[in-house]
Amino acid sequence: MACQGKKLINDPNDVVTEFIEGLVETYPGLQYLDGFPQVKVVLRADVSSETHDKVAVISGGGSGHEPAQAGYVGEGMLTAAICGDVFASPPVDSILAGIRAVTGPVGCLLIVTNYTGDRLNFGLAAEQAKAEGYKVETVIVGDDCALPPRRGIIGRRGLAGTILVNKVAGAAAAAGRSLPDVAAEAKRASEVIGTMGVALSVCTLPCPATSDRLGPEKMELGPGIHGEPGAAVTDLQPVDVIISHVLQEILSTETGYVPITRGNRVVLMVNGLGATPVMELMIAAGKAVPKLQLEHGLAVDRVYTGSFMTSLDMAGFSITIMKSDESILQHLDAATKAPYWPVAVDGNRPPAKIPIAMPLSRSTKSDESLCRPLNLTQQGFLLEMAVESASNAIIGLTDSLNEWDARVGDGDCGSTMYKGATAVLDDMKKHFPLNDAAETISEIGSSIRRVMGGTSGIIYVIMCKAASAHLKANSQADITAKQWAEALEAAITAVSRYGGASAGYRTLLDALIPALEVLKERLDAGDDPVTAFVLSSEAAVAGAESTKHMQAQAGRSSYVSEDILSSVPDPGAMAAASWYRAAALAVEDNYKVS
Amino acid sequence: MACQGKKLINDPNDVVTEFIEGLVETYPGLQYLDGFPQVKVVLRADVSSETHDKVAVISGGGSGHEPAQAGYVGEGMLTAAICGDVFASPPVDSILAGIRAVTGPVGCLLIVTNYTGDRLNFGLAAEQAKAEGYKVETVIVGDDCALPPRRGIIGRRGLAGTILVNKVAGAAAAAGRSLPDVAAEAKRASEVIGTMGVALSVCTLPCPATSDRLGPEKMELGPGIHGEPGAAVTDLQPVDVIISHVLQEILSTETGYVPITRGNRVVLMVNGLGATPVMELMIAAGKAVPKLQLEHGLAVDRVYTGSFMTSLDMAGFSITIMKSDESILQHLDAATKAPYWPVAVDGNRPPAKIPIAMPLSRSTKSDESLCRPLNLTQQGFLLEMAVESASNAIIGLTDSLNEWDARVGDGDCGSTMYKGATAVLDDMKKHFPLNDAAETISEIGSSIRRVMGGTSGIIYVIMCKAASAHLKANSQADITAKQWAEALEAAITAVSRYGGASAGYRTLLDALIPALEVLKERLDAGDDPVTAFVLSSEAAVAGAESTKHMQAQAGRSSYVSEDILSSVPDPGAMAAASWYRAAALAVEDNYKVS
Repeated sequence: MACQGKKLINDPNDVVTEFIEGLVETYPGLQYLDGFPQVKVVLRADVSSETHDKVAVISGGGSGHEPAQAGYVGEGMLTAAICGDVFASPPVDSILAGIRAVTGPVGCLLIVTNYTGDRLNFGLAAEQAKAEGYKVETVIVGDDCALPPRRGIIGRRGLAGTILVNKVAGAAAAAGRSLPDVAAEAKRASEVIGTMGVALSVCTLPCPATSDRLGPEKMELGPGIHGEPGAAVTDLQPVDVIISHVLQEILSTETGYVPITRGNRVVLMVNGLGATPVMELMIAAGKAVPKLQLEHGLAVDRVYTGSFMTSLDMAGFSITIMKSDESILQHLDAATKAPYWPVAVDGNRPPAKIPIAMPLSRSTKSDESLCRPLNLTQQGFLLEMAVESASNAIIGLTDSLNEWDARVGDGDCGSTMYKGATAVLDDMKKHFPLNDAAETISEIGSSIRRVMGGTSGIIYVIMCKAASAHLKANSQADITAKQWAEALEAAITAVSRYGGASAGYRTLLDALIPALEVLKERLDAGDDPVTAFVLSSEAAVAGAESTKHMQAQAGRSSYVSEDILSSVPDPGAMAAASWYRAAALAVEDNYKVS
Repeated sequence: MACQGKKLINDPNDVVTEFIEGLVETYPGLQYLDGFPQVKVVLRADVSSETHDKVAVISGGGSGHEPAQAGYVGEGMLTAAICGDVFASPPVDSILAGIRAVTGPVGCLLIVTNYTGDRLNFGLAAEQAKAEGYKVETVIVGDDCALPPRRGIIGRRGLAGTILVNKVAGAAAAAGRSLPDVAAEAKRASEVIGTMGVALSVCTLPCPATSDRLGPEKMELGPGIHGEPGAAVTDLQPVDVIISHVLQEILSTETGYVPITRGNRVVLMVNGLGATPVMELMIAAGKAVPKLQLEHGLAVDRVYTGSFMTSLDMAGFSITIMKSDESILQHLDAATKAPYWPVAVDGNRPPAKIPIAMPLSRSTKSDESLCRPLNLTQQGFLLEMAVESASNAIIGLTDSLNEWDARVGDGDCGSTMYKGATAVLDDMKKHFPLNDAAETISEIGSSIRRVMGGTSGIIYVIMCKAASAHLKANSQADITAKQWAEALEAAITAVSRYGGASAGYRTLLDALIPALEVLKERLDAGDDPVTAFVLSSEAAVAGAESTKHMQAQAGRSSYVSEDILSSVPDPGAMAAASWYRAAALAVEDNYKVS
């Protein structure tokens, strides 16, 4: 389900070059090496091999894993990153050029992900650099825990754990440690890291569209960061279940990949694979932490959540667990100017999440304790019938409202109204003082306000509060039809004032204004209240239907083209007509002349 | 082409709650307010309304735009973020709770995106808070430039420019400015910002899958950040063209949305909409900067590239241009602990990108200047024919190699080999010293090394260098068949040593080792060299075909299941067999007994 072939690029052959150009435009501290674009080396603008008195830390590999590795260049992390083409190791000459550009007399450390190509290219470059007199050490990172051990010759793949190794090595180098020390710290870090990925889609290469082997409702466990098949393709699960499985695999004592046991301290990295929104990554992080603590008995020292080492536009994430200690934490927390190392994650985490206490309202009005009356007056009974029918009408219209709204808005009108309607039904049973119509209308507003976000929620709250205030000020216990009409008018006026809409703006007012007009007209003409109510509800429905022919003037639909609008009525108006109509019919059905 | 309905979540109703939980786990400086999860307020863990002596800066709105706004909470930016449900404004009670929690005696500023729902909810909350005695100011941000002006009542939509307003206001507040000053700075900032988006896919809501109105090869200009339709749906263009159009629209003097004219200084934000990889965002940034400078005559002071205000999993980006001056730059550069404000972008950008000079090799060996001989010896002629046929065989096999590789690797074997083959053909015409076979083989390696990244590239370089070294050390100008066979053996040995593979590992060696065996055997048996070469090439082909039945032991295919492997031969072996066979047939065709 990847966005096959649709990419915001120019020539597919230029993606890496143009990425580096944008990176250097964005970050003043980064620069590329001469020989660009054939030589694709990103390095610190403030470092030269002639003056550099720290160990240079160099990483790199195939591109397509952005921000890795170029985004980690900066004081305190990488000195240079060598970029290959997409998913292809950089050539030996580029690696050599990078080594020569940033390596001073104290030497350089190459951090290499464990792929045959990277090993061969960085290996040959290291040998050549040594022959030229440079001090060079190499650390290979293979942190994948998805596949069974000791298969073939090359061992575990290098995944997002590499970023943590970069940070440890970069901090050690910035602290002035010697090359053997920096290499030893990096190696030690690489040996306590485990990573496993989960993908919802395979990445698509800029040029030839790769086939998507994952169908709908499927996910892949343990994919490689180049779209290589993983350990298994299974049905999509809630992320909770996925996280449990992935943590189990990484920490498995059977494979023994990472030397982490109960009581240990760890660092967690939740890494997006390219097309996974921050929301989903955070959800994963929020589930992984308590599982590590409670199910695996580990203390979680730091959490890094973001897209650190991606696979182009792959949807999914990987989880990395690293055994931590004071020395590792010190290196991870050390300051760096690398643009993509996460900020605001250092420092000790609180032992538990204690929400901040909410100050009380400064308002002096105390809440009245309300309850549903045991015996209903006729008006109370009619009000209950009307509110019940109106709410049920909205509940029944949920899908249609969502559908209309998806065409002209954001598709949630029905779901939002549904929440309000069910809350009103629930609360009515519990505590609506139905014999007090003014208070009941106010309570409807409170119920709506409690559960309905969004425009429609607030508009209904304003309407209820305005109508209630009008009734309280202008009527007795028994409300006349004329007073009801005036309350409706007060509600309409308030909405129009706060929201800025009026008749013909393609809003719920286009149902309610015609209804109000007919209601007042019929009452003035001497019709009985029930007939007037029912007739006015027909006007509401007609008014709502007529919104199809209106150009939107308010709300999100004002951005939608006339073509689309003319095929869809305004969902807000349809909802208003629907509950108004249902209320009128309920009153008609239940009204008994006393 | 969005990944419809495939999300790494649990219950769609819990996504915002669980996002906040993960956010608070990741960033020790953030906390949520009591009343969570019904009240979704993220705030600075170190601020309390009782002690807070700075202006509180509060923003918020519907969720689904992560990291906005919760990710911008931190000293120097937002004091609190009020989160609604996905694409729904937060309810008034939550906003009020947030105001009460962080607003000290100097008051608070509400930064509100210009949507009816946000305006109504934040507006009512502000009125209520004022009634409770709080000092409250509100700034509405509407920065969208995609749609024609003055349509309807609500004006321009609030998009990613809001993040820049947050930063300006947050820095002003942190500097101890008064509420009227902070509000004035925020308002001034909001008036010099323009934004326009481009989408390749519509976002998919966690619960009801919305219909994807964008087909393949289409893009939408000016979509809203809730998936609302934009100004136009057009054919997908290179990003270069898209950027030109978007900049033109934002800076249009017809709409006059932003008061930016030639000679002004600006800040650029390239904002991913949720599922757009960093690579593509950087490509856009790299194109936008020179266009702003050269085509629009603007100085670009800062570039912010990242996913700052998204629309769930929408693929695409928005461009924001803000007029800058010293005061705005000072606020944008001011330190902040907000996790998602980009780092390493502050400070003046170099006037032009000057690549860092590449130090020369410390190696003393100077490159020989080579050229193609005017007259070829018979051996030179045969070598040319063989190399030409071998290269053309690879070129002809490109698509098949890619296809096989897509099944078992990363799908680029053919494209990579193609690069090498065309470089060899080009360079041969220019400078291969064809009469010197050893040097020519070395040059083939150099050509390959120049253009081919990836495993196959380096493996061929190693082979060429090893074969060449062997020929130089062990043969004269005229090379015997036995010496050629020994050179092949030297190449195979070197690859096996560096890469770790041997026969049966499902690599190119499974074509070359059988070929070498037959070649040596036939030569020992007294066959003429051409016949032996042709017979050995048949063994190469048979060997390559036989890789279908081999379990991979090296390279990326070692992670692929046996089922898949058994239907595909190893692309590296097939490529090797192909060039070897073509070379043998070329020699057979062109060999004349002299």
